[in-house]
Amino acid sequence: MPRYKLTVEYYGTPFHGWQSQLDGKGVQDAIEDAIEKFSGERVKVQAAGRTDSGVHATGQVFHLDLSKQWDSFRIAEAMNFHLKPLPIAITGHAPVPDHFEARFSALSRHYEFLILNRKARPTFMRNRVWHVPHALDADKMHEAAQLILGQHDFTTFRASMCQANSPIRTLDRLDVERRGEMIHVFASARSFLHNQVRSMVGSLVEVGRERWTPQDFRAALDAADRKACGPVSPPDGLYLIGVDYPDLDA
Amino acid sequence: MPRYKLTVEYYGTPFHGWQSQLDGKGVQDAIEDAIEKFSGERVKVQAAGRTDSGVHATGQVFHLDLSKQWDSFRIAEAMNFHLKPLPIAITGHAPVPDHFEARFSALSRHYEFLILNRKARPTFMRNRVWHVPHALDADKMHEAAQLILGQHDFTTFRASMCQANSPIRTLDRLDVERRGEMIHVFASARSFLHNQVRSMVGSLVEVGRERWTPQDFRAALDAADRKACGPVSPPDGLYLIGVDYPDLDA
Repeated sequence: MPRYKLTVEYYGTPFHGWQSQLDGKGVQDAIEDAIEKFSGERVKVQAAGRTDSGVHATGQVFHLDLSKQWDSFRIAEAMNFHLKPLPIAITGHAPVPDHFEARFSALSRHYEFLILNRKARPTFMRNRVWHVPHALDADKMHEAAQLILGQHDFTTFRASMCQANSPIRTLDRLDVERRGEMIHVFASARSFLHNQVRSMVGSLVEVGRERWTPQDFRAALDAADRKACGPVSPPDGLYLIGVDYPDLDA
Repeated sequence: MPRYKLTVEYYGTPFHGWQSQLDGKGVQDAIEDAIEKFSGERVKVQAAGRTDSGVHATGQVFHLDLSKQWDSFRIAEAMNFHLKPLPIAITGHAPVPDHFEARFSALSRHYEFLILNRKARPTFMRNRVWHVPHALDADKMHEAAQLILGQHDFTTFRASMCQANSPIRTLDRLDVERRGEMIHVFASARSFLHNQVRSMVGSLVEVGRERWTPQDFRAALDAADRKACGPVSPPDGLYLIGVDYPDLDA
């Protein structure tokens, strides 16, 4: 069966996360409905990252198999037509070989987390940022972030319900950058544990507020104990911004 | 009476513009309600720019007079408390001398217009951008924009209901810049005619689509005729981002 790779952007607030839900409120449910509407086939799609309730994506990737051969451009057009008026949009499309798997072929996943750091609440960025009214030292947060790069046991930054076999992950990037009132946190790894980004961001905010030193942040990692984690950030500011794959033409 | 200058951010979509409305749906109405709630005084506030229905602001400025002396920080805090849950937030505050007028003292007004230029509809930027699915040449748009800088009769780019005495304005900046899928248009002038930015942006999109040359854009200005204007852009992508004043300490 021909296989297709699609890139999708969504506003996560109205959905109960990526994954298919009994109530049909998963992003995946909306996508499978749209596929059925244009193709007549009910298929299961598989995504690179199962984003939680309220988490957004600009560069989520999933694959699907259809029995009929389609121009991938037509799939994207037809899905965008049937996804209206939901805040989900297909932004990229390509035919891929049978062995491509959105989840297992991924080489790297990239997340961005937005913190609105000012006294006043968000207005047009409501539900799209984490509002932290306390002064944050973004340089200190960045300094702390650099101390946990590389391969570690990330048990501290892992949700208790995480189903991964191992807590060992390799964190390739964790950058904190202030742009005016907004603090951007960029995180990249081959894969992340459940709630890992939100757990790391929540603890980095403790550093930004100067309740933790950068060394405390590293010590929390070394404790390899969930109780050492700071308060987990809300989902609102988290965006899955991209997924890297091996060169498909190779 | 003590006078205060406040800076305000708002998401314009749910409001019928800045100006006070009979139905109470103006941003100004919500602000005057919040002032009354904390101070007990019903006052009229005056803004630098009367944004239209659906237009947003990150740096709108208004002034108000209160009979009692307040710490301006307390005014901002109290207003933000009473503005909840509306998407309006006071982001700056200062006491100002009696002769300060948010509208008439302004030296320069700055607008930003966001165009999402891709096939797929906006998701989390819905109502916050103008979605243009046709390919746009942002460099050509910028080139055209430079041709109308300076002092001109802007009748072409003026709404028929515009109440200004003169169509002569001095355009100080009109920059068009692509950042990925988003095209940003920055416009600055001491003052603008009604719908001037949206009219200019709509016509620039004709240039971006290569239906007009940059010279056609300049010729439209020279015609000094509303009929020479391209389709006016929707309000969704427009943000009042800042207002400059003379140094208040001078």
